[in-house]
Amino acid sequence: MSTSDTANIAPPDPARLATRRRQVAAALRAVLPERCVLSEPEDTRPYECDGLAAYRQLPMVVTLPDTEQQIVAILKVCRELGVPIVPRGAGTGLSGGALPIADGVVLSTARLNRIVRLDAYARTAVVQPGVRNLAISDAAAEHALYYAPDPSSQIACTIGGNVAENSGGVHCLKYGLTVHNVLRVRMVSIDGEVVELGSEALDAPGLDLLAVFIGSEGMLGIVTEVTVKLIPKPATARVIMASFSDIVTGGNAVANVIAAGIIPAGLEMMDQTSSRMVEPFVHAGYDTGAAAILLCEADGTVAEVEEEIGRMTAVLQQAGASAIAVSQSEAERLKFWSGRKNAFPAAGRISPDYYCMDGTIPRKKLAQVLTGIAEMEIRYGLRCANVFHAGDGNLHPLILFDANQPDQFACAEAFGADILALCVAVGGTITGEHGVGIEKIDSMCLQFTAQEIGAFIAVKRAFDTAFLLNPDKAIPTLNRCAEFGKMHVAGGRLNFAHLPRF
Amino acid sequence: MSTSDTANIAPPDPARLATRRRQVAAALRAVLPERCVLSEPEDTRPYECDGLAAYRQLPMVVTLPDTEQQIVAILKVCRELGVPIVPRGAGTGLSGGALPIADGVVLSTARLNRIVRLDAYARTAVVQPGVRNLAISDAAAEHALYYAPDPSSQIACTIGGNVAENSGGVHCLKYGLTVHNVLRVRMVSIDGEVVELGSEALDAPGLDLLAVFIGSEGMLGIVTEVTVKLIPKPATARVIMASFSDIVTGGNAVANVIAAGIIPAGLEMMDQTSSRMVEPFVHAGYDTGAAAILLCEADGTVAEVEEEIGRMTAVLQQAGASAIAVSQSEAERLKFWSGRKNAFPAAGRISPDYYCMDGTIPRKKLAQVLTGIAEMEIRYGLRCANVFHAGDGNLHPLILFDANQPDQFACAEAFGADILALCVAVGGTITGEHGVGIEKIDSMCLQFTAQEIGAFIAVKRAFDTAFLLNPDKAIPTLNRCAEFGKMHVAGGRLNFAHLPRF
Repeated sequence: MSTSDTANIAPPDPARLATRRRQVAAALRAVLPERCVLSEPEDTRPYECDGLAAYRQLPMVVTLPDTEQQIVAILKVCRELGVPIVPRGAGTGLSGGALPIADGVVLSTARLNRIVRLDAYARTAVVQPGVRNLAISDAAAEHALYYAPDPSSQIACTIGGNVAENSGGVHCLKYGLTVHNVLRVRMVSIDGEVVELGSEALDAPGLDLLAVFIGSEGMLGIVTEVTVKLIPKPATARVIMASFSDIVTGGNAVANVIAAGIIPAGLEMMDQTSSRMVEPFVHAGYDTGAAAILLCEADGTVAEVEEEIGRMTAVLQQAGASAIAVSQSEAERLKFWSGRKNAFPAAGRISPDYYCMDGTIPRKKLAQVLTGIAEMEIRYGLRCANVFHAGDGNLHPLILFDANQPDQFACAEAFGADILALCVAVGGTITGEHGVGIEKIDSMCLQFTAQEIGAFIAVKRAFDTAFLLNPDKAIPTLNRCAEFGKMHVAGGRLNFAHLPRF
Repeated sequence: MSTSDTANIAPPDPARLATRRRQVAAALRAVLPERCVLSEPEDTRPYECDGLAAYRQLPMVVTLPDTEQQIVAILKVCRELGVPIVPRGAGTGLSGGALPIADGVVLSTARLNRIVRLDAYARTAVVQPGVRNLAISDAAAEHALYYAPDPSSQIACTIGGNVAENSGGVHCLKYGLTVHNVLRVRMVSIDGEVVELGSEALDAPGLDLLAVFIGSEGMLGIVTEVTVKLIPKPATARVIMASFSDIVTGGNAVANVIAAGIIPAGLEMMDQTSSRMVEPFVHAGYDTGAAAILLCEADGTVAEVEEEIGRMTAVLQQAGASAIAVSQSEAERLKFWSGRKNAFPAAGRISPDYYCMDGTIPRKKLAQVLTGIAEMEIRYGLRCANVFHAGDGNLHPLILFDANQPDQFACAEAFGADILALCVAVGGTITGEHGVGIEKIDSMCLQFTAQEIGAFIAVKRAFDTAFLLNPDKAIPTLNRCAEFGKMHVAGGRLNFAHLPRF
């Protein structure tokens, strides 16, 4: 994606910033080993963006603590000096949640990467925040267990980041989001206090602060330890690939599968633009003549899978599928999935740039929203490939554009904002799993009333009175929403270095 | 249970209270129809306690609003006059969460009892808070759907109360608690603002305030509407009844079923005291020679149930079951369950009084905790019948006592507090599904650190600055915990009329 837009961000006064950097770095070095503090631009440059690379900002200082005690020390220094802190996992987030602040500190959890304990009997693992998502399943594999949430970045992304974003994945329809698979989080508050949320026993008295913490985008505390649930690997899995000659029929088929009381292990949909985009790339045998392709997976014991495949096939046929294929081997199952899993790289192959959106809608509105997006393609003169976690109504429209053409990025952004507005209009939400971050902070004003945003701000303040933890992300100020109401979304470029704090 | 202990609660000054009652009732009658405000003791008497009948307190005024607008009006009056409010559903709660305050208003949601909308296609129902739990399933039955959480009070308790307590039930191991079955709550804040939490679409951006609201025991707002999930009724269900000759073997068998990757629809355990208590009452054919009886239910399609019953039978045999019976008909299934479902009435039949506790423990600690409770029976000289949702480690010890014997109630309370302390010591919690209310507020000090309780208080304050919504319930003040640390639990009789607010 283009990064040229970031040139218009006014940097803070360089002399003042340099003085402040020296002061903050010195205070941090007084309590941390030398290797844990980076303050030279050549060292901090790798931290200037996350997966939303269109937004960049060099941080003032980066800290890389090894221990919880060091995190306590960092937060105490920052609290004392009034320095904002941006927590960072692997930096794979897609909404700019880990975008640095010009006069702020980035706190990376990369070095807290130890699996503390794995209890196969209780089916839990206790891990540090910097442990990669897939590393948990790798460690549990010898017990035939795994950690269920599987964001597409799972080889790189960390459990701390998953907690911050409440990450999902292809299988979350059946196995839930991060919030359904985490029992306990240990975290350090901005005041340097260690607090445990949740419990390894079922249900905890008091307010459910674990749930409010998960998905809070680094605004409530710094994770130092997470207890995750492990579940048994299903004995087998098979996937149905079904074609539909129009998108409305395909959308309705998704709703019918769920309405029949089936919870597939995965229920994904791709439109024709997507299947034509990926087929030359993966040769998965996709029906490129179909307007929509559905992938419906069943997992479990052999008997369960056979029964569920039978029921799903019947529902899809009755819903008007024009062709149906069922994977006959594990190799074929992986082949059927390869197109869906490679949609993003395939988009990069046919278009210079793409903008991946992430909204949710009630399942029964799928056909209506797809029709609306098709109309927007004409209005904006840009193509959009639609892939989605259809089972839970989570859309990932990929808007294709060329950042070297004047105005195309702004046009793609406006297109994306219109898609989100449509999601909200039909009763959906502005993000399914990528988070709000910096990217969708204005869209929050569409989603929520002033009273609702006021409730978010009040809870944020309950954890962080001074608004130092990842400020200006995820929750807009009411002033910001008032301003946003007066201007067109594409005109709302963010000047995050100088935004007022809450 | 005895109510004589409540005599030692010092009432507020009668003259001042009468003046205050006239003032508050007049202000409420100015904004509500006459029938919605009760202020004479003969009218307010029915509201003096909930299911925890040992604690009683006549409220100053009771309001019975018909509409959301009237709730807004009530809260605005109370906010203006600084009057505390206790929300009340059906009053079936077991921890005193709906216990009135001497100079407070009870807000009953009994008249908001309409099913607003039932959407069989989206599998949701929108209901008002006063709708009874079972009435939702009754209304959904024509579509072969039902609402899963099934607290034993489900014929009487309301969905608003279920939201307040995050209620569970026999099937929550497989189908989850209230928090897993509610998509959206509409509520009025203490400032009279209407706020919607959650969404009918999957996942919502911003902080997960729905989860923090569910289980908040009426401390964050008044529910005016709830969207619940409906799920398809399983085609069939069968239950295994297994006997164990000692309690340790039975406890380990529970852990083994779960460790085998099976999620039974129900997994309940009864000790010998319980089975001997209920068998003469229900004639269910319970093996009264066994030290423990397990009930393991499978539900789903016929094939799924057959397979799961087979796997569970194998695990239970390997775990050392001395006898195993599988229900061969729906009538037999209900007979096997009848003893478990009638444990409370059966306790009332053999003992003048009983005190039902509610704690959770990690499953693998079941045998250890049962052994500990057996030792306490000797120490306190009271019998304890143990029934539990064993699958999710939720214990319901029934302490049998006679309130007419001097000191037996105090002794039972001390026994109960000791059980909770043991739950906490082994990594469990002080409540599984009955809530904290007034009953367990001191035990919260055992469960949580000062920092953790501070976080609860801060979030409470974020919703309710003046601490007017159900004050002195669920979350102790730090002062209270400090005092509690110095005194024996049984000596800590609550003087809730005069407690300082947070």
